[in-house]
Amino acid sequence: MPLNFASRLDKVETSAIRELFKLLGKPGIISFAGGFPDSAMFDVEGLRQASQQALAEQPGAALQYGATEGFEPLRTELAAFMRSKGVEGIDPTGLIVTTGSQQALDLLGKTLVDPGDKVIVEGPTFLATIQCFRLYGAEVISAPVDGEGVQVDRLEQLIEQHRPKFIYLIPTFGNPSGALLSLERRRRVLELAVKHQVLVVEDDPYGDLYFGEAPPPSLLALSAQVPGSREWIAYCGSLSKVLSPGLRVGWLVGVPELLARATMCKQFSDAHTSTFAQATAAEYLRAGRMPATLARVRQVYAERAAAMGSALRRELGEAISFTQPQGGLFFWARLTGAGGKAADGAAFARRAIEEGVAFVPGAPFFATDPDKASLRLSFATADVEKIEDGVRRLARALG
Amino acid sequence: MPLNFASRLDKVETSAIRELFKLLGKPGIISFAGGFPDSAMFDVEGLRQASQQALAEQPGAALQYGATEGFEPLRTELAAFMRSKGVEGIDPTGLIVTTGSQQALDLLGKTLVDPGDKVIVEGPTFLATIQCFRLYGAEVISAPVDGEGVQVDRLEQLIEQHRPKFIYLIPTFGNPSGALLSLERRRRVLELAVKHQVLVVEDDPYGDLYFGEAPPPSLLALSAQVPGSREWIAYCGSLSKVLSPGLRVGWLVGVPELLARATMCKQFSDAHTSTFAQATAAEYLRAGRMPATLARVRQVYAERAAAMGSALRRELGEAISFTQPQGGLFFWARLTGAGGKAADGAAFARRAIEEGVAFVPGAPFFATDPDKASLRLSFATADVEKIEDGVRRLARALG
Repeated sequence: MPLNFASRLDKVETSAIRELFKLLGKPGIISFAGGFPDSAMFDVEGLRQASQQALAEQPGAALQYGATEGFEPLRTELAAFMRSKGVEGIDPTGLIVTTGSQQALDLLGKTLVDPGDKVIVEGPTFLATIQCFRLYGAEVISAPVDGEGVQVDRLEQLIEQHRPKFIYLIPTFGNPSGALLSLERRRRVLELAVKHQVLVVEDDPYGDLYFGEAPPPSLLALSAQVPGSREWIAYCGSLSKVLSPGLRVGWLVGVPELLARATMCKQFSDAHTSTFAQATAAEYLRAGRMPATLARVRQVYAERAAAMGSALRRELGEAISFTQPQGGLFFWARLTGAGGKAADGAAFARRAIEEGVAFVPGAPFFATDPDKASLRLSFATADVEKIEDGVRRLARALG
Repeated sequence: MPLNFASRLDKVETSAIRELFKLLGKPGIISFAGGFPDSAMFDVEGLRQASQQALAEQPGAALQYGATEGFEPLRTELAAFMRSKGVEGIDPTGLIVTTGSQQALDLLGKTLVDPGDKVIVEGPTFLATIQCFRLYGAEVISAPVDGEGVQVDRLEQLIEQHRPKFIYLIPTFGNPSGALLSLERRRRVLELAVKHQVLVVEDDPYGDLYFGEAPPPSLLALSAQVPGSREWIAYCGSLSKVLSPGLRVGWLVGVPELLARATMCKQFSDAHTSTFAQATAAEYLRAGRMPATLARVRQVYAERAAAMGSALRRELGEAISFTQPQGGLFFWARLTGAGGKAADGAAFARRAIEEGVAFVPGAPFFATDPDKASLRLSFATADVEKIEDGVRRLARALG
């Protein structure tokens, strides 16, 4: 007799993207498919020293059970990091450490979502978010995004129509849209939160990866300028894209009652995040290496993004449309069908694999109303030469 | 307006034990309250070398995103570790790595429990298990335990009465009972699993911490001898009690369809367990240091357990009854009320704090029908002298 699994599993499916990733083992393939940073850019020496320091200074603490809320020295460093990014009045008790920001999303789902609750996300948005919230019974609704991020008028209509439990946004260089929510729209989002008394979850793993001038303040930072809005913001931070995903260190900022509930749930999810990883991250931040690391990462990704934009315009021309990203890891593009070329992202992805280049079709990133002509291209893990070669392969695949 | 939290949170409460722990900061207190290993016994040098090796050999992999199922070299080492403990026919694909065994429990809850499902646990059992399963809507039922572990006749009655989704047992030196399920009862549990087609979850964080001869095989290992039983066992392992809780490395063994579902859920819980911690654990196991570490830990805990047993008999005499544990971290004891002494564990715990010694009353460890005369004493983190001093304080508190 087979095991009888919980009915919540019926709400999720193995992702189409996961299936695609199985094809990436093909030799010689150039991948624009990943959603991860380039491991060649990890500050291995800095992390080596930090982990050594953690074990030398407080081996007992670094290897023992720790507080569910997080390792105190790391909470202190993260609060300072947030202050350095313009968040006023945050102290170590204003955040809890999570096992990657994915766990922050899971804890928000566990803490807030009753089956049947509505959650508004961007269309497109991060796939694992949609699935994560669905596992808790959420009905996930998409608000449309353009080159300036989520369309706030449409967002307000959806809030009024659906009375969501919360709104989930990646306002800064979002995955997969790469879009940067404008300062004006950021204010509007905060005003909507206050007006409709609705929680806004700001997921911000990419905000530090800007290429030119710094982006507008995070919703959390900006909330100081919109009276009453701070209490309606929950913020998810992560070291994964800027330092190392393998540490699995993220954090959640929110009002005390939300953090208390999330901490209780975390106690039964994984007790606490690896203290060894937390102590390593704390030592790394304390050593002051982050600014130089960020500067280096920004420069390399900026070069790659510029190279990909030029190559796409040169090689694919009218057949593709996109907004040049100002940060993050992704190009979000649409096949225009111009000149009778392909206009279906999934079919194009299959032909591209045959030509030796991989990317992810865009449709799965939509909770509702998929745009089948869309696609996501990551420039993070290929160097400039590979990017140019890969885009030429894309052009061949397009025919 | 306050946030509107999910109704599943109504099913859990901040634990009474957590409140007690706040009192432990009192200067000079001797604590038998913890549920953790002694950090003075961590093999810091071995873990330092292992973490260095991980960063030297494969920094990219150790710091990058990893497979949700676990870091391949660690799965290989853990499969070998399980084979060394008598589990036949297990290969790296037969287990997934979890963020501590707490996450294995969470994934089992997420994967299997629909609201209203029944789960049978031992009375008493690990508190965080009860709360973890309740968060997924489980009704948790206690099966009574004696000095030889869960009472199997009573367990069968409860299975027939409640048709549980699964049974959760800590058969080897369980928390808090310290009990060792006898070989005969282990066979009976496996036969019950087959007869009633019910999943048995074996949580085994303490099995390697035996003081004299090795305990009977785990249910998982023994399942080879009971036809058809292997598919009804899910096994949770952990490095927390034997190596380091701070790594947060646990694992889950089960049939492929269960592991596939748990992996899908884990993808949305924390993506994967820290690859840095996993790579460190893999290098540690590969270096062959575990046998010597286990031998050392067993010896120290055996001395402490012997000292605590002698002291309890000497100082508290007839006022307390217990079975001398043959492994693990805990004494589980009952106040007898003999000589008009205290018979309430919670009241005794409060008086003990005043005398400068802490332990955990037993009642909260029962999902149903609490035994208010019970208490849990950990001998893990105090040396022999402190144990003897602490037990004298207990005697004073008893009056």
